[in-house]
Amino acid sequence: MRLEILPVEGIGDITAGDDLAALIMSAAPWLTDGDVLVVTSKIVSKAEGRLVEVPADGPERDDARRRMLESETARVVARRGPTTIVQTHHGFVMAAAGIDASNVDKTHLVLLPADPDASARALRADFAARGLDVAVIVSDTMGRAWRNGLTDVALGAAGIGALRDHRGEVDPYGNELSLTQMAVVDELSAAAELVKGKCDRVPVAVVRGYPRHADEGDAGAAALVRDTASDMFSLGTAEARTQGLLDAAHLPEAASPADPEAVRRAAALAALLATPGTGIVAEDGAVRLTPAGSGSADLVRLGADAYRVRVALAAEGVTSSTAVDDAGVTLIFGAS
Amino acid sequence: MRLEILPVEGIGDITAGDDLAALIMSAAPWLTDGDVLVVTSKIVSKAEGRLVEVPADGPERDDARRRMLESETARVVARRGPTTIVQTHHGFVMAAAGIDASNVDKTHLVLLPADPDASARALRADFAARGLDVAVIVSDTMGRAWRNGLTDVALGAAGIGALRDHRGEVDPYGNELSLTQMAVVDELSAAAELVKGKCDRVPVAVVRGYPRHADEGDAGAAALVRDTASDMFSLGTAEARTQGLLDAAHLPEAASPADPEAVRRAAALAALLATPGTGIVAEDGAVRLTPAGSGSADLVRLGADAYRVRVALAAEGVTSSTAVDDAGVTLIFGAS
Repeated sequence: MRLEILPVEGIGDITAGDDLAALIMSAAPWLTDGDVLVVTSKIVSKAEGRLVEVPADGPERDDARRRMLESETARVVARRGPTTIVQTHHGFVMAAAGIDASNVDKTHLVLLPADPDASARALRADFAARGLDVAVIVSDTMGRAWRNGLTDVALGAAGIGALRDHRGEVDPYGNELSLTQMAVVDELSAAAELVKGKCDRVPVAVVRGYPRHADEGDAGAAALVRDTASDMFSLGTAEARTQGLLDAAHLPEAASPADPEAVRRAAALAALLATPGTGIVAEDGAVRLTPAGSGSADLVRLGADAYRVRVALAAEGVTSSTAVDDAGVTLIFGAS
Repeated sequence: MRLEILPVEGIGDITAGDDLAALIMSAAPWLTDGDVLVVTSKIVSKAEGRLVEVPADGPERDDARRRMLESETARVVARRGPTTIVQTHHGFVMAAAGIDASNVDKTHLVLLPADPDASARALRADFAARGLDVAVIVSDTMGRAWRNGLTDVALGAAGIGALRDHRGEVDPYGNELSLTQMAVVDELSAAAELVKGKCDRVPVAVVRGYPRHADEGDAGAAALVRDTASDMFSLGTAEARTQGLLDAAHLPEAASPADPEAVRRAAALAALLATPGTGIVAEDGAVRLTPAGSGSADLVRLGADAYRVRVALAAEGVTSSTAVDDAGVTLIFGAS
């Protein structure tokens, strides 16, 4: 296999209602069946009229941007200084929800296409109607966790599988490959970016020579959106730590199933955390804590200490319920 | 600009001490000045002897893998089920520290090159010694946050800048571009992966036609490693939440600087969280809490409630110190 990455030059300004397929075909009469077109989402948005009018400057502009960000946001993932990383309604995790003020006049913001897979399918159909069988990727620039610098990835795709699955293949040493689904439409988007440039008005590039695989499906780039429940990085570190603090302030009264280990850990944590002299007795499915002294202040300290022990247990995944009486606190883990 | 992505076939098995430049040049006599060689880290590791002997199976193999993972790990970033994502000593955040059991016989594991930028520089120098001026990228396959599927990225680079910086450029509408550093060596690695395949013994691909920019520097792929302090996703969500719980169990006694807002929030949180009937009086730089009733159990509950209020404040970034006496608890925020 041998690929060529070809820029499509001379497309010019795009405005709402423009026929992108016609404009691309006239700028690139050399397009041929089997080509993969990588189209910057910006021009798809413009053609689809996904522009919002905003003031050119001043606090009114900031307010308008904030309102747009809110309406494009499904949930905030992380915030630091001026940077807000959100998950969009599409499921993409992007700074500022992908809202862009570049390559557009100062009185407009460009939103992402409402449904980039549908945009890619429609564009592919427009080419097909003109007799051209091409795959279409709608791409945008994204940041990543852990690595500096941005790369282009696929927001939408049609006529090409998003993932190439090597699972089940066997290497020359007889090892079965696992966990090897390559995000090929992201790699194609990255390859295309190399010939695009940001201010060069090259919003489309063509990858020529990339084979279609019969079994790859056509589920679109939505297949690349990891669902939040299985994402180990669904929240920013600071936000998740804050969530832990909030959880600690609102511990549920809920005894874990009977577990002698929980009793052992609770007693150990109490010995570590509670005021010296605190009474600590491990019982059947419970730990009894009594105050270090006979004063009222000792009872207050006991209450705080017992809560701290429960929080430390929660950090280990163990929940507890409590019974408070005039002589002390019992942490209850369910009878063993 | 127009790129070609060309596979280098027929390199064959690599063993420790092999002269990679010689093997690549004989497999690809068509190489020419200005080409960018993207070399899979696996063969660099093999040539550099970065293999570890391990038992072919059984618990001894698992133990050996675990030991290798520990020694390659600078810190654990996230764990879920069988997956461990760590930061390596190089700074890369990767599942299993990039240790690989594929494309090697069953009695060895392959570690990442010890210094992939140095590997890339040495390989580039080897080509230069043979009269060939090529850039070299050492690539590997990585997972990402938020998106399914893997992509190839650069672990090492020589003769090419890792980032292309568009900051300061002005688009056709007069908007200055910001935050637009493209990780071009990652994009080149992704482009090369498209022609490589996993079991096809195509460990090298060439990108032809990518221009060298005079100002891009040659700091290597280390420039792509985001430092942990500025990474908003330096820890897994579950791990960071657990850190928040641990922090909550070990609140420091440390009054924030004087802040009437802290006093107001503390009183509001106490009203929300404390046992109904608890006395709440906002004072100058402090909130005084007194028990809801006259029994000993009320004092114990007061202690727990006061601690919960302090935890909830910590979630808002406000620290406090406490004074406990026989009549109640005072949360102190510094005199205003």
